[in-house]
Amino acid sequence: MEFETILKIVGSLLAKGEISALRSLLSELNAVDTAAIMEELEPAERLRLFRVLPKDVSADVFSYLETDSQTELVGMINDKELENLMDEMFLDDTVDFLEEMPANVVTRVLRNTDAETRKTINRFLKYPDNSAGSIMTIEMVQLRDDMTAAQAIASIRRNGIDKETVYTCYVTDSTHKLLGAVPLLSLLMCEDETMVRDIMQNDAQLIYVNTLDDREEVAEIVKKYDLLSIPVVDNENRLVGIITVDDIVDVIEEEATEDIEKMGSLAPSDDEYLKTGVFKLVRNRIFWLLVLLVTGTLAGILIFLYNADGFVTDNIALIISMPLIMGISGSAGSQSSTLMIRGLLVGEIDTKDYFKIVFKEIRVAAVCAAVLGAVNLLRVFLPGTDGIKNCAVVSLAIFVSVTAAKLVGASLPIIAKALKRDPATVGGPFIQSLSDIISLAVYFGIAGAILN
Amino acid sequence: MEFETILKIVGSLLAKGEISALRSLLSELNAVDTAAIMEELEPAERLRLFRVLPKDVSADVFSYLETDSQTELVGMINDKELENLMDEMFLDDTVDFLEEMPANVVTRVLRNTDAETRKTINRFLKYPDNSAGSIMTIEMVQLRDDMTAAQAIASIRRNGIDKETVYTCYVTDSTHKLLGAVPLLSLLMCEDETMVRDIMQNDAQLIYVNTLDDREEVAEIVKKYDLLSIPVVDNENRLVGIITVDDIVDVIEEEATEDIEKMGSLAPSDDEYLKTGVFKLVRNRIFWLLVLLVTGTLAGILIFLYNADGFVTDNIALIISMPLIMGISGSAGSQSSTLMIRGLLVGEIDTKDYFKIVFKEIRVAAVCAAVLGAVNLLRVFLPGTDGIKNCAVVSLAIFVSVTAAKLVGASLPIIAKALKRDPATVGGPFIQSLSDIISLAVYFGIAGAILN
Repeated sequence: MEFETILKIVGSLLAKGEISALRSLLSELNAVDTAAIMEELEPAERLRLFRVLPKDVSADVFSYLETDSQTELVGMINDKELENLMDEMFLDDTVDFLEEMPANVVTRVLRNTDAETRKTINRFLKYPDNSAGSIMTIEMVQLRDDMTAAQAIASIRRNGIDKETVYTCYVTDSTHKLLGAVPLLSLLMCEDETMVRDIMQNDAQLIYVNTLDDREEVAEIVKKYDLLSIPVVDNENRLVGIITVDDIVDVIEEEATEDIEKMGSLAPSDDEYLKTGVFKLVRNRIFWLLVLLVTGTLAGILIFLYNADGFVTDNIALIISMPLIMGISGSAGSQSSTLMIRGLLVGEIDTKDYFKIVFKEIRVAAVCAAVLGAVNLLRVFLPGTDGIKNCAVVSLAIFVSVTAAKLVGASLPIIAKALKRDPATVGGPFIQSLSDIISLAVYFGIAGAILN
Repeated sequence: MEFETILKIVGSLLAKGEISALRSLLSELNAVDTAAIMEELEPAERLRLFRVLPKDVSADVFSYLETDSQTELVGMINDKELENLMDEMFLDDTVDFLEEMPANVVTRVLRNTDAETRKTINRFLKYPDNSAGSIMTIEMVQLRDDMTAAQAIASIRRNGIDKETVYTCYVTDSTHKLLGAVPLLSLLMCEDETMVRDIMQNDAQLIYVNTLDDREEVAEIVKKYDLLSIPVVDNENRLVGIITVDDIVDVIEEEATEDIEKMGSLAPSDDEYLKTGVFKLVRNRIFWLLVLLVTGTLAGILIFLYNADGFVTDNIALIISMPLIMGISGSAGSQSSTLMIRGLLVGEIDTKDYFKIVFKEIRVAAVCAAVLGAVNLLRVFLPGTDGIKNCAVVSLAIFVSVTAAKLVGASLPIIAKALKRDPATVGGPFIQSLSDIISLAVYFGIAGAILN
């Protein structure tokens, strides 16, 4: 059934108050789709639909609603309903939700949870942004190493239903220290009386992270080992949570967005464009624009200095090639820096490859620059370029400045990485403006030497 | 244990021929790490290590080796070993591997598989690049709707061990038509005699894709519904395979890399930088550089035309502000296009939001441009800028060209999307070079009107 059709039916059932028909229709739907339908309804209708859902489903649907709708809905339900909602929601979804809420909502939510949960939530809210702790969940299956497979499966059947993932179970000792991991499949495939400790992965095979590890590193590990979930331990090696692959998928996408934004001269931001105010959007953009104002001014000063005896103003052929040289060099530099930034991030290149990279970039730059320089000579047939000598000067300037821009573009991200900084900060606008200055200096230097 | 330590121990055990110690060490390791160790060894040593591994493990390790090592290793093993390897490897890994191999290796591999597998492999090799069919696997659990939960679990225990994922089982009828999906957890939690058809998700809840669907769309669906795997059907709605979340993670990362490369003036490429030849790297870069040569030439012609009566050459103050205006406008346009491209891709914005976006961009541009214009007036204290009137002209030009660049930058990706083209192709270098021309035209137009 099409989304629009379902939406229409839901609307008319709500209007007619046909609750049982509504309930049976909704029971056929996925929580993600139910949430999408709720988004389309008016607040009062949304509340009615929310109340029709079974408790566990409503918590699941709630976690897929957008922040605005969540805030609104929480403002409309009573304390008892809020308490039920918090009971049913996965802890990591609750924490995600609370992080977006205004202080008064957070206070009301915390007042309506039991002391134990409140303590856990407060601990979660304290994990730094972008840490493993901030994206983990505490809903998981913990087995003891002295259980048999049959006992383990019985324990999963007893406790497993509201665990976010049971497909990899984690084994701890009596002090909650992490000992190993065992896939549910292994438990199913072995004899009933096999000991958990005999089939669990341990030692070198056991992969885990610390609560304070960066979520980007966690994503790399999950990706590298094709995991469905990864255990998170505290500084005493006690199992405190797990991170599931669906949250890792979000991390990978958000990190890619951040890099893309940095390359596009933007301050990285998690906010959705359509929901972000004008001044916040300005704030994300103005920094790099002001930097470009400064570097553009520096380029201007460079031109002014070269023009000491009218060298620039006397020569229109020189002026009309400026945009061309700056444009080509900027992109040449940005090509190299893009490859390095992405390669460093996905682990395809390493700082120790630096000299190999420089040697390769010099060869690539030489070939590109030779092609561009040759094609540029065709411009001799255009008006204003003032003869083959001037065109040759431009070709030479392209050759040198493309090579320089590629070397700088390839080097800066690797140097940033070696200094433990984020390579993406020296991509995009940074390399573009730097290569503007380099290319103008190269151009006027060569032109001055040959034409004067 | 550290990787370097393990590597050293493996090396010395290999040298001494202590095979049983080696075997027990390797049994502690993850296939990913064993593959990483093999990468570090000499080809002959690599072959010896490969032969030490149990058959099923060696196939797993092989699928994690880099293409070069795979080719080399296949060239060194005999036909019997090749046949075993192909038997043990997951079909999707085999296909991935064959896609990278030269024709003679493919022929030899196909000669050493049974007729049935050969037919399947050939079918897989025919799925278009980037289609769901090209990344699916046929190793999965198929249940019949008339089984009981106990029968289903027995069937999984019997067949499940070499299935890539058993955690969501798919239910078909006798003609292999997809009827529903049932999580292994549901099978475990219910009574033994419950019928599979009574607990499976079907109708609106059942999510599946077609073999020919684009892998990027598949990734969006898996992400949206937080799935561990998704079933793939053919045009007759028959279940032909599944795609697992680990392959989706790779798709998301590769698609992000493609977009980043397009923004960085590069032709998208799957090849690792360090393994790509100089001429291939040149090929990926030269297109945009040549485009910029052309647009730079157009910008030059523009300057030449404006200079008809020496307007440009007479005025050094005009010339020294050119890099500044071009740089700021290029980045302003690239900021807007980046937000649109990413927003369209992750589904945060839609072509129907166009007018809302234009209105927002105009306001953001106005505020940014006002700030930049005001700061620009400070340049009056620098030599060469030639007084407040000239600076005011530049400020006005910044205002108009930033606004224009932002409008064009925001519009083009949305128009591309509406025309069913990839929005990323009009980002990065495209918008940069377009805004170079726009900003110079605006600048000289305003300067001509005010200063003449």
